[in-house]
Amino acid sequence: MASAVEEKETGRIEAFSDGVFAIAITLLILELKVPHLEGGGEGGSLARALAAQWPSYVAFVTSFFTILIMWANHHAMFRLVRRIDTPFLYANGFLLLLVTFVPYPTAVLAEYLRKPGAPTAGAFYAGTFVVAGAAYNLLWRAATRGRGLLKPGVAEETILGFARRYRVGLPAYLLAAAAAFVSVYITVAICMGLWVFWILTARNA
Amino acid sequence: MASAVEEKETGRIEAFSDGVFAIAITLLILELKVPHLEGGGEGGSLARALAAQWPSYVAFVTSFFTILIMWANHHAMFRLVRRIDTPFLYANGFLLLLVTFVPYPTAVLAEYLRKPGAPTAGAFYAGTFVVAGAAYNLLWRAATRGRGLLKPGVAEETILGFARRYRVGLPAYLLAAAAAFVSVYITVAICMGLWVFWILTARNA
Amino acid sequence: MASAVEEKETGRIEAFSDGVFAIAITLLILELKVPHLEGGGEGGSLARALAAQWPSYVAFVTSFFTILIMWANHHAMFRLVRRIDTPFLYANGFLLLLVTFVPYPTAVLAEYLRKPGAPTAGAFYAGTFVVAGAAYNLLWRAATRGRGLLKPGVAEETILGFARRYRVGLPAYLLAAAAAFVSVYITVAICMGLWVFWILTARNA
Amino acid sequence: MASAVEEKETGRIEAFSDGVFAIAITLLILELKVPHLEGGGEGGSLARALAAQWPSYVAFVTSFFTILIMWANHHAMFRLVRRIDTPFLYANGFLLLLVTFVPYPTAVLAEYLRKPGAPTAGAFYAGTFVVAGAAYNLLWRAATRGRGLLKPGVAEETILGFARRYRVGLPAYLLAAAAAFVSVYITVAICMGLWVFWILTARNA
Repeated sequence: MASAVEEKETGRIEAFSDGVFAIAITLLILELKVPHLEGGGEGGSLARALAAQWPSYVAFVTSFFTILIMWANHHAMFRLVRRIDTPFLYANGFLLLLVTFVPYPTAVLAEYLRKPGAPTAGAFYAGTFVVAGAAYNLLWRAATRGRGLLKPGVAEETILGFARRYRVGLPAYLLAAAAAFVSVYITVAICMGLWVFWILTARNA
Repeated sequence: MASAVEEKETGRIEAFSDGVFAIAITLLILELKVPHLEGGGEGGSLARALAAQWPSYVAFVTSFFTILIMWANHHAMFRLVRRIDTPFLYANGFLLLLVTFVPYPTAVLAEYLRKPGAPTAGAFYAGTFVVAGAAYNLLWRAATRGRGLLKPGVAEETILGFARRYRVGLPAYLLAAAAAFVSVYITVAICMGLWVFWILTARNA
Repeated sequence: MASAVEEKETGRIEAFSDGVFAIAITLLILELKVPHLEGGGEGGSLARALAAQWPSYVAFVTSFFTILIMWANHHAMFRLVRRIDTPFLYANGFLLLLVTFVPYPTAVLAEYLRKPGAPTAGAFYAGTFVVAGAAYNLLWRAATRGRGLLKPGVAEETILGFARRYRVGLPAYLLAAAAAFVSVYITVAICMGLWVFWILTARNA
Repeated sequence: MASAVEEKETGRIEAFSDGVFAIAITLLILELKVPHLEGGGEGGSLARALAAQWPSYVAFVTSFFTILIMWANHHAMFRLVRRIDTPFLYANGFLLLLVTFVPYPTAVLAEYLRKPGAPTAGAFYAGTFVVAGAAYNLLWRAATRGRGLLKPGVAEETILGFARRYRVGLPAYLLAAAAAFVSVYITVAICMGLWVFWILTARNA
């Protein structure tokens, strides 16, 4: 009985969080603006205009998979959690704040990728994920201190494995932010490389 | 059997409400507009433009946590509710109307925080939460009159504690609305102070 | 076992439909645009600008409660449904098409309520609900032909009561559309009157 | 016990996917822009302006039903799936990427349907569904290789029927993309014809 109630409790936070992830990931598309061409797109000018938007596509795809992986991580973490308390609730809220914020630096990156502001845009973009990484650590700490929130059967090894696998995120995103001042393409490459890394190292979810 | 049906009933309203909360909280980001700079953001002008948007960040974060706390309160209230009737359904609808409205005063506040219209913007912002507070009282009253909707085991103490804790909201938001005519920063400080207060006084959710 | 599977089946359509309702109702706010004032809102000009937006508030509130009632009706209908088939699935899809469409006539009405285009805007607005009413009839017919989709215990009386209560919608919205050519305020009054009528005649949901 | 856990696992991906489908389908309406008329819509000019938007309505309805059918297919596929692994999770993510992308080619098609850029717009639109079709094949392959993810009772016949029914999509959308260079209306007709075909051939969902 108690366990069904707890299930429902974590269930409603998961549902709310899933909603926020799903909406944030879908809102990314709103930053892609239809090109308005003087000649109505004649002589292949529409095709050229659509192709010239490639920085927007790059930013869209990178952010899409980053949010998807953040969701998968969130999902994996909640599988270990049995019940929630107030610090955990607000640590989760802080993480969701970062998730809802992602479409904004994505739009900034898309706008400035080929312009003089590219280093700033890249650092702003990667910097957002530095803070998001910190939010994940905070949430994980809220879940594990005293282990009161975790399910009884969770092995110490699983907890350490979790922490180890995501430890790479923070320095990598810091590096990506700094690299923007050399070339914003390194920033994008690191961000894409990270989600390839996380996909490849994922155990079966 | 009856209890499973009731569970499903309140479940669908909760799911719908969760959806509205999740979408409203995620739409807040749409008010942040990418700065379009003549020189393409050269010479640090993009960094300055992003920094100059701080009123938008303040409005975004304040509204985000306010909606998050409204959601947590809604969540806590529904834990006590066993079944719903029509007045409760529409009192909940009225509350959701206010929730979906929040992005608009947020955008107005962000736009006018440093302009002559700041007092009006601040009063409009805090005034929205005055009405939202009234909607909460209405919903709580719809839930508790005759106690027909509450779960059997809910103690009188819990009900009073609930009412007591949220009673502070209405006068505080009224004060925040009035304070806007002295300084809009007092308004923002009170709004932020309120969610810190509610986070700190929250029992384990 | 079979019943649990069926429950899950209708459950996923309900969840998807709830999502569409929740998003459509929340997107309404995006039509409210922050006024951009030359003087930065000095001398009460922001307050006047916000007050001058009343047609948008009227359209927002009317559409909000109309979608809320459409959701409540959908909810009430699905309580009687045990399983779904393909015609029901696409009749439901047609209804959702109308639900997602509502923000558009709402924005048109808000824009033209005090302009020469008001009759057209009012007729377009009410006309949308004429089609939505037809979609409800279609869905209800898909649910009841042969009664194969309804739960076993549903009384004939309940089915007739359902049909009777919503029969008023179609002619009332047709009248509202026609009345727009006399005065768009009659249109709005009928639309608001309808949801007051449906709230008052609702059995306990 | 294990089965309840698995149910919850696929349940959370389904809920997340449903959210993305529901949001993408509802965001389509944001591409419809209220016409701003100089004379305030006098002398029937608003009615003419609303009628002149028919390419937007065509694009809206076509994309709405296409996403609805993608959702129904997704739904039908998940009914056969018992548990998920990492490749399946990211194949699903790739499909969702395409779903969230749909509002963009829809807007491009609506903008250029009657302009010189129509062939490009039509090919871009149909091309999106070519890729989406490939994503479905990928997901279905991830589900069926080794059959480890499917429910035990799923007949070979069901699996083949599934594959057969959707095999028509890829060449049909390729044809629709190529046909845009003859006439964009053929493209639209094929896209609409496809969802009529899928609705008619659907077994009871």
